[in-house]
Amino acid sequence: MSEAAENTRLLHLEPLGDATGYASQMHTLIERSPLFENFNLAEIRLMSHFMQVFRAEPGIEIIREGDAGDFMMLLIDGRIEVFKQDRWNAPRLIAMLDPGKTVGEMSMIDGGPRFATCVAAERAIVAVLRREALARIILEQPILGAKILMELVMMLSQRLRQTSARLVAYMDREEERDN
Amino acid sequence: MSEAAENTRLLHLEPLGDATGYASQMHTLIERSPLFENFNLAEIRLMSHFMQVFRAEPGIEIIREGDAGDFMMLLIDGRIEVFKQDRWNAPRLIAMLDPGKTVGEMSMIDGGPRFATCVAAERAIVAVLRREALARIILEQPILGAKILMELVMMLSQRLRQTSARLVAYMDREEERDN
Repeated sequence: MSEAAENTRLLHLEPLGDATGYASQMHTLIERSPLFENFNLAEIRLMSHFMQVFRAEPGIEIIREGDAGDFMMLLIDGRIEVFKQDRWNAPRLIAMLDPGKTVGEMSMIDGGPRFATCVAAERAIVAVLRREALARIILEQPILGAKILMELVMMLSQRLRQTSARLVAYMDREEERDN
Repeated sequence: MSEAAENTRLLHLEPLGDATGYASQMHTLIERSPLFENFNLAEIRLMSHFMQVFRAEPGIEIIREGDAGDFMMLLIDGRIEVFKQDRWNAPRLIAMLDPGKTVGEMSMIDGGPRFATCVAAERAIVAVLRREALARIILEQPILGAKILMELVMMLSQRLRQTSARLVAYMDREEERDN
């Protein structure tokens, strides 16, 4: 599915304008946010100019597994359920996000398919950062841009270490069974 | 083990100075380099000022699994064998690197333990980029710094997608067996 389809989905959300009015609230959340925990209020304020805020009613699907995507989002208020299809294509709850958590970084970065589906479990407020906005930050605010990229690199590196360790453990177990 | 230990290991390599004299050669390799394939000659030249070149004789260990690390390297000439310990702590060959390939990005980024051991399979020339040099690039050459970070983010994102897909496949197989 195209990014246009994902943008169409965002039309089901109520747009609340850019994120500047939410900068203080976002800053109170960042200690719970692995991605933004090292950002100070001035940096959050600066970044908020490049983000849009949306409200999602309960049950609304914000991101759909398999779609191409071009944004990440920070959950400001409410809760989001994350589902991944199992091998019978049935949705399986794999995570529950609370305020401060971010989701969708990988597709923002590479435009690749969404790994999972995100549904508002209760009325949710999210701040969206699109890839083209990140590109503008890098050009217009290079120091902030480098900081965001550095945090993304650190986060991905950490996740890759965890995922690789789990994969190696599964491979070992399978081999043990086969011997 | 400390980063100091890893730096001690680099002392077993012959230092050949900074990488400026190797910029053209590095540029001829980049089409084989997932990390640097989008860099033009001017960018490689600029980056080469921040990299050091070393020669490793055959059999010399350049990176040791489990060590803390603070650099990545680009293989300019020769071949490098990559070993990972299996569960009996025996080294298992998991990859063979040829010129243009990079290795060590994750530890450069987060200072965490090396995932595998790298040994020169034949006389090898490597260009090393340390974390502190990347930090200087970001400050002194922010556009180049953002480009390097963006490429790192893309590479990690791609690897994370591949590793996650393999992990999900193993988890599915295991569940199928248990049912």
